[in-house]
Amino acid sequence: MASIASPHMRAAIILMSCPDQTGIITAITEFVYRHQGNIIDLDEHVDFENHTFFMRIEFDLQNFTLNDDELRAYFQRYLATPYQMNWSLYFSDAKPIIALFVSQHLHCLYDILARCESKEWDVKVPVIFGNHEVARPVAERFGAEFHLLHITKENKREQEQKQIEILRQHNVELVVLTRYMQTLSDEFVNEFPTRIINIHHSLLPAFVGAKPYHQAHARGVKIIGATSHYVTAELDAGPIIEQDIVRITHKDSIQDMIRKGRDIEKVILARAVRLHMQRKILVHHNKTVVFV
Amino acid sequence: MASIASPHMRAAIILMSCPDQTGIITAITEFVYRHQGNIIDLDEHVDFENHTFFMRIEFDLQNFTLNDDELRAYFQRYLATPYQMNWSLYFSDAKPIIALFVSQHLHCLYDILARCESKEWDVKVPVIFGNHEVARPVAERFGAEFHLLHITKENKREQEQKQIEILRQHNVELVVLTRYMQTLSDEFVNEFPTRIINIHHSLLPAFVGAKPYHQAHARGVKIIGATSHYVTAELDAGPIIEQDIVRITHKDSIQDMIRKGRDIEKVILARAVRLHMQRKILVHHNKTVVFV
Amino acid sequence: MASIASPHMRAAIILMSCPDQTGIITAITEFVYRHQGNIIDLDEHVDFENHTFFMRIEFDLQNFTLNDDELRAYFQRYLATPYQMNWSLYFSDAKPIIALFVSQHLHCLYDILARCESKEWDVKVPVIFGNHEVARPVAERFGAEFHLLHITKENKREQEQKQIEILRQHNVELVVLTRYMQTLSDEFVNEFPTRIINIHHSLLPAFVGAKPYHQAHARGVKIIGATSHYVTAELDAGPIIEQDIVRITHKDSIQDMIRKGRDIEKVILARAVRLHMQRKILVHHNKTVVFV
Amino acid sequence: MASIASPHMRAAIILMSCPDQTGIITAITEFVYRHQGNIIDLDEHVDFENHTFFMRIEFDLQNFTLNDDELRAYFQRYLATPYQMNWSLYFSDAKPIIALFVSQHLHCLYDILARCESKEWDVKVPVIFGNHEVARPVAERFGAEFHLLHITKENKREQEQKQIEILRQHNVELVVLTRYMQTLSDEFVNEFPTRIINIHHSLLPAFVGAKPYHQAHARGVKIIGATSHYVTAELDAGPIIEQDIVRITHKDSIQDMIRKGRDIEKVILARAVRLHMQRKILVHHNKTVVFV
Repeated sequence: MASIASPHMRAAIILMSCPDQTGIITAITEFVYRHQGNIIDLDEHVDFENHTFFMRIEFDLQNFTLNDDELRAYFQRYLATPYQMNWSLYFSDAKPIIALFVSQHLHCLYDILARCESKEWDVKVPVIFGNHEVARPVAERFGAEFHLLHITKENKREQEQKQIEILRQHNVELVVLTRYMQTLSDEFVNEFPTRIINIHHSLLPAFVGAKPYHQAHARGVKIIGATSHYVTAELDAGPIIEQDIVRITHKDSIQDMIRKGRDIEKVILARAVRLHMQRKILVHHNKTVVFV
Repeated sequence: MASIASPHMRAAIILMSCPDQTGIITAITEFVYRHQGNIIDLDEHVDFENHTFFMRIEFDLQNFTLNDDELRAYFQRYLATPYQMNWSLYFSDAKPIIALFVSQHLHCLYDILARCESKEWDVKVPVIFGNHEVARPVAERFGAEFHLLHITKENKREQEQKQIEILRQHNVELVVLTRYMQTLSDEFVNEFPTRIINIHHSLLPAFVGAKPYHQAHARGVKIIGATSHYVTAELDAGPIIEQDIVRITHKDSIQDMIRKGRDIEKVILARAVRLHMQRKILVHHNKTVVFV
Repeated sequence: MASIASPHMRAAIILMSCPDQTGIITAITEFVYRHQGNIIDLDEHVDFENHTFFMRIEFDLQNFTLNDDELRAYFQRYLATPYQMNWSLYFSDAKPIIALFVSQHLHCLYDILARCESKEWDVKVPVIFGNHEVARPVAERFGAEFHLLHITKENKREQEQKQIEILRQHNVELVVLTRYMQTLSDEFVNEFPTRIINIHHSLLPAFVGAKPYHQAHARGVKIIGATSHYVTAELDAGPIIEQDIVRITHKDSIQDMIRKGRDIEKVILARAVRLHMQRKILVHHNKTVVFV
Repeated sequence: MASIASPHMRAAIILMSCPDQTGIITAITEFVYRHQGNIIDLDEHVDFENHTFFMRIEFDLQNFTLNDDELRAYFQRYLATPYQMNWSLYFSDAKPIIALFVSQHLHCLYDILARCESKEWDVKVPVIFGNHEVARPVAERFGAEFHLLHITKENKREQEQKQIEILRQHNVELVVLTRYMQTLSDEFVNEFPTRIINIHHSLLPAFVGAKPYHQAHARGVKIIGATSHYVTAELDAGPIIEQDIVRITHKDSIQDMIRKGRDIEKVILARAVRLHMQRKILVHHNKTVVFV
């Protein structure tokens, strides 16, 4: 899933950011080159305002002269440390494991499960959490464990601890909120930094919070949208990954807006999850660098 | 300009709204039919929330048995009064007269003047107001009278009175703010209800007020937009006519956003002005019904 | 499904076209009005080239003074016959029955079945035909009868007869080809005039026939698209219902195009099916009039 | 114009393509680094089908240790020759010189001239060729020399020679066809390889040749578009640079399509010209690699 190269090729992907300075690209590409790695894809970006350098590099490991541990160790010693990098290393043959949270609206849930089952995506979805029974048969039909958790102000902490435990058991690396109508506590969010993706049914920052389509209808806008973003402590304020829109007219009732919105919500959430799985997103200063 | 029918045909356009009740469409179409009018276009909309009926009807006057005054008088007596209509009557051969207000950014000004000069639009632009000299040569080259008005808190009232006077002299029916960086007083706005169109360089209601592209950049959105709307007393809160968007990425600086935004600002403002000139916009409860 | 009004209201929908002449709208609305029908929605269009009038009218039957048979008979006698109309009458409480044809690509199939199961659509899908086993488990899981039919030049006629028979048994009114990689015979198509909807993965008329994404890649286009259309005897030449696009760049391989295309194929096919179910599409001279 | 960096910085831009092999990126970035160049922007692309490597690199010359001639000579000797590159070198302070060809439709002409005059673009437009007098006053008003050339089968060769001569006198590097309704001879095209940009008012390859909007109307499409491309010997078959679309409905007459099309033609042509001026387009196998 992670590789943009052919599925038969085992590739390494490195995502990194660091203070900008000359020579970085040379140093990194030279490192890959010297160990017989073949660069499949390289994307870089310089944020001149913040003097920050961002890079995604993917290279074929077929003839690479270092094993995975050596790669990690050498890159840390000779590049990450001297250049003060934030970096992460991924391998294209690691199968991502994601968990889905859902409430009553199932369109995003169906969409993601269908992508997995039809092998459009090569990811595992071992577990689904819901706060309504309606999702259980769907989850089970698609072979995922379903947990119904009624969350109240009183039991929230404890219920979330249960969730975290189950997510750990399944080695879940990404939590996807498929129209999950329930805010997460800071504790929970901090457990999964830039590892929780939400879909909000407005073009953020417009119409934050509840019933965005009702807000849009009241304002009489001609365009509505959806936004996928990483979840942070502040509601609907996390780094935006993807957005898309659909045109509406005076003829569209709130029901029409909800219906039209569903089709972009599905697509925009799926795009964000896919980009994350492909290791194409870097987060910096509450913004995303997305290498497409 | 107003007619959607062939330019050779003289047509009447009626825009109306009233409390919804059965039989309205029959009554109106029957009225046109009885006097030998041929309906070229009919659009209607019912706002079920507010029980309000909206209609635009355009009909050929070639064989119409009433003259313009009779049409106005009879429609008022037999339809508008009994059905408590807000209505207006237009004729397709009336050439609209518009005035432009501009500051330093001239792209919308150039765009509108080019549409007029190239006969894409059949409208008159006799007068342009600016608060910088930069627009004068452009105005004069395109044959429009240019008035430089420096507006300060102190002289605002008096300067606006001057503007209103000049607009009256030219029988201006529509004021178009082509990126005019100056708020209008309530007095001025009330002189031209739903007859002042502004372009705001964001997807309202997001990023109201100054420097929307800077706000958008700070938030890290992936889509920016522009909104054309009627000007009301409250800043950037008037009825929205048209909106459009353009995608951006992490690579786009504020300068890039300003550049990309220009191209949609031009188009979105022009669309709104054209729709107004074609008598296709009705305003109700701070929203527009746009019959396209 | 058919009604755009509240689901609790029983409404009649009339779709009609006829030679254009003055007085039609009055005649029709007067007919509804006289029998205490309340017009919920009215859309009309005049094709001036072909002097043809098109109309969709939907009215509430709550206080209507005619029963369904009388409505049909009177409308025929007093309007359809004198005005030489092609017309059809639908009732909002009739639940549409559709059949799906599929090959190996299941994304559109999943999408439609999910819309039905999640009650986004109120339609029945009793039967699915496929030419590969891959779709069987999906069909059965969603509670639809699955028929595997291997179609060869030799057995095509006979296999299609079998299909027609089964479709009749289920009273199927609409056949949806969800990426069905098999052409239908003229005999079959003529059984279901404007009642077979196909999704073609290009912006028709570009890239007709097989492997449109490969064709698009070879030409180096920057935009790809999908087209939903009614199936006629000529391949990919039927009346276009809906189209949508997605941007691509030099970075997109054919695989990327196939992936990106899937998401618009799903949406564009679903939009077309929904518009058909809502009785919003009229076909004339191999074009559609779509009242949205 | 060419630089994407701050206008105050003098930068070099290198566009190159060559057979793909490992180590290229290292070699190039190392070359820049060794001579104290600071990389402002780097984009690369590998075409795996054709085993071709593409790159655009832009670097700050402030502390660069080679002068322009040395840069050109060393890059040729140490990189271009060993790696068999097609390459070109540009400097951000060189002001592009473009010529415009126009017929009767002036919207693209107005649009480009306004961008230049308003300093949105920092380019020179010394000369405009037209085959109708209508463009003369516009050209002169914007301070460009205007040449009226009536081209017939008989005088085509000779007239084009005159054009080439004038273009050479003005050191024109890019010819822009702003809706120029006249085909160019192969001789002319070969004079300016990938240096003639045309706007075609359809989404190529659909509706090649004359009257694309009429063709689109006849087919009943729901989306029309515009395509900017480099001109080659074959009509409307050159490498596509940019495309955009606008939605239409059954209500849109051919006149409406022409009107709606104008607004995307302007924008799509301008985008292509700008990308060319910024040295962001590489052409290979009749396709473009566009680094945005």
